[in-house]
Amino acid sequence: FNVWYTPGVSKISTTIRDDNDTSFDLSNRGNLVAVVSDSTRVLGDGDCTPPGGLGVMEGKAFLMKYLGGVDAVALCVDSKDENGKNDPQKIIDFVKMCQHSFGAINLEDISQPNCYKVLDVLREECDIPVWHDDAQGTACVTLAGLLNALKLADKKIGDVRIVHLGAGASNTTIARLIIAAGGDPKKIALFDSKGGLTTDREDIKADKRFYRKWELCESTNPDKITEFSEACKNADVMITLSKPGPDTVKPEWIKTMADKSIVFNCANPIPEIYPYAAKEAGAFIVATGRGDFPNQVNNSIGFPGILKGALLVRARKVTDNMAIAAAHSLADYAEKRGINPENIVPKMDEPGVFAVEAADVAMQAIKDGVARIEMTWDEAFQKAKADIDYSRGMTKLIMDNDFIDTPPDDMLQEAIEWAINKVK
Amino acid sequence: FNVWYTPGVSKISTTIRDDNDTSFDLSNRGNLVAVVSDSTRVLGDGDCTPPGGLGVMEGKAFLMKYLGGVDAVALCVDSKDENGKNDPQKIIDFVKMCQHSFGAINLEDISQPNCYKVLDVLREECDIPVWHDDAQGTACVTLAGLLNALKLADKKIGDVRIVHLGAGASNTTIARLIIAAGGDPKKIALFDSKGGLTTDREDIKADKRFYRKWELCESTNPDKITEFSEACKNADVMITLSKPGPDTVKPEWIKTMADKSIVFNCANPIPEIYPYAAKEAGAFIVATGRGDFPNQVNNSIGFPGILKGALLVRARKVTDNMAIAAAHSLADYAEKRGINPENIVPKMDEPGVFAVEAADVAMQAIKDGVARIEMTWDEAFQKAKADIDYSRGMTKLIMDNDFIDTPPDDMLQEAIEWAINKVK
Repeated sequence: FNVWYTPGVSKISTTIRDDNDTSFDLSNRGNLVAVVSDSTRVLGDGDCTPPGGLGVMEGKAFLMKYLGGVDAVALCVDSKDENGKNDPQKIIDFVKMCQHSFGAINLEDISQPNCYKVLDVLREECDIPVWHDDAQGTACVTLAGLLNALKLADKKIGDVRIVHLGAGASNTTIARLIIAAGGDPKKIALFDSKGGLTTDREDIKADKRFYRKWELCESTNPDKITEFSEACKNADVMITLSKPGPDTVKPEWIKTMADKSIVFNCANPIPEIYPYAAKEAGAFIVATGRGDFPNQVNNSIGFPGILKGALLVRARKVTDNMAIAAAHSLADYAEKRGINPENIVPKMDEPGVFAVEAADVAMQAIKDGVARIEMTWDEAFQKAKADIDYSRGMTKLIMDNDFIDTPPDDMLQEAIEWAINKVK
Repeated sequence: FNVWYTPGVSKISTTIRDDNDTSFDLSNRGNLVAVVSDSTRVLGDGDCTPPGGLGVMEGKAFLMKYLGGVDAVALCVDSKDENGKNDPQKIIDFVKMCQHSFGAINLEDISQPNCYKVLDVLREECDIPVWHDDAQGTACVTLAGLLNALKLADKKIGDVRIVHLGAGASNTTIARLIIAAGGDPKKIALFDSKGGLTTDREDIKADKRFYRKWELCESTNPDKITEFSEACKNADVMITLSKPGPDTVKPEWIKTMADKSIVFNCANPIPEIYPYAAKEAGAFIVATGRGDFPNQVNNSIGFPGILKGALLVRARKVTDNMAIAAAHSLADYAEKRGINPENIVPKMDEPGVFAVEAADVAMQAIKDGVARIEMTWDEAFQKAKADIDYSRGMTKLIMDNDFIDTPPDDMLQEAIEWAINKVK
């Protein structure tokens, strides 16, 4: 203890002081992610007060460790100013203060419109990746599903007409990523509760906090279609992240879509239309946010590999290109092991996907010039695989030796009953 | 995964939202400590830039886990304002924002005078314990050593004359805790590089940031002794936390002390006078900060048990009474297994001490009215012991299965050589 603690640690401190980048080697930060939330939009429950988000953030941290071999810590912060209003600047200041303790930041469950500013400012001003999983993570996995759905429908991303219902952080980011991946903004239209996102939307233009939405008002929907049902006619793809269903999306709308239509109905806990109803209305491929239906759009196949890849090469950012690379990686992985209309994306219990995804993301980071260190694809893959195997091995070891309790039956039972009641 | 993740977690979120105190049960925060530093005073190396403190904070986190069965995470924060000055208010805001994610905060290696304000404001305004280990931890363990040294010298704390050399955060807190534990302020005198702390010290009075020092100027050293050597005459106890030695304290000063004199020379890496020289000069008991001499004043026997005890009863604060209870607990534990002038305090490798200390601190928290929940001494002891055994068991399990590397020989060798060179 004596030798190890005092002079050894002092040498570490002064080495890091003289070159901050050595901290990625000489401390745990290189493989450590902060899961930061102000708990103002926790799943479907809205503002849960700062500690209310701890369960979700700890669950996220566990998935990072188990699936991606990444250490993570949950930080639920109070973003209220003196007047009790949630202030995005407070989250920004908080993350900037502690960024040197981490290799990356995962923002989570921050309500609109604060989440836009927090993400955009932090992405610009932090020297480590800042990932907003609700927006970027959902967009990445949705894009992965769309890429494979288009393969099955034999359509090209630049040719298809896409309609979005719901224009929150997730769906607007999905649209942005689709465009960055080759989608044609002139063939895309988004709708929120007040109608189409077009240059006529003075309400969006007037509120500077919604600048991300306004960008889409300017670039998409050139025909200024105001009714979602109208936009559905001959659309190839529908992506809804809107009011929970099952009657939010009408079967008639899907009936008017183009041949081999692809629909993503991702509201939770109930999709905007049930998959059987969407299929009956003629949908070729249906995806939802639910694990008990086929084609779950599940962030958990995205963020563990993406963050692992970014950490491997000590990336300064996660670029849109890296998110798109992850989407292609997921899509290609699924394609190789076989896809069909009921199975377009990898599932969380396909552990092989994460190391491949991490390596693909790491290579894109190097290409984009945001990596602090370089390595080959194979080196990245082997390192990711070793870390993930380690995490899984340790979890298994600890469980086998009774160091982690399996969830008690009565708690499981209670959760199931609660879920059933909620659905009723 | 499906049942467990979504509805189960939602129930947790809303339950915590409706009663924040349930977060201690329903998340990991109840046993989780944030080790927060701005890395401006890292061991002997001064300002190491924010990431420079990560090694020390991670070491601290490991000791909490291994010795106290407490989970901990290192948070090194950038406390600089727009002008590049370290601003204590920034650390205060940071901790207040994330306090709901933790059961307690351990402040560490924050430079003077900022550390005073940070600690005092946070202790007042946070609803969880805020512990400043450099000050309170050192004071607690020093008091433990002093209590046993006084037993061996057959002297009473209220009767002895005590002189302090060095009036930084540690030594001023030691003086405050000794007074709270029964020491007579009129028999205590403190000295810094500018002389005695007395009401004549306009420099201290003028700088509001040093209000803690000024309080001691007002309460101690009524004779206004200005020379440390003068104050040593007939003093029973000397406590130095000053310039590293070995010539900072002169043997002549110790020679003039009272019979059965007790000296704590705790500068690192070299004590203000070597123990053999202090003994030659007549000291009855000598303690230092070094593990390779007898009687090491080592914070590591304090904070793991103190924080564990505070967490067990979900204390809102660590009161001075709790720190004093910890000191008595440590002293009594050592006395029971046998003390002598070369062995006055427990060592880090006496694992039995921590659960007893935790239970004693928990009981004092209940007495002081700062505990959220109550339990018996035996319940607290059994829970602490189980958690500590778990930590040690898991560490052993993981090491036995090669999941943790032992330090590589060349790194150890380098650390030793570096230490030797530093001492030369």
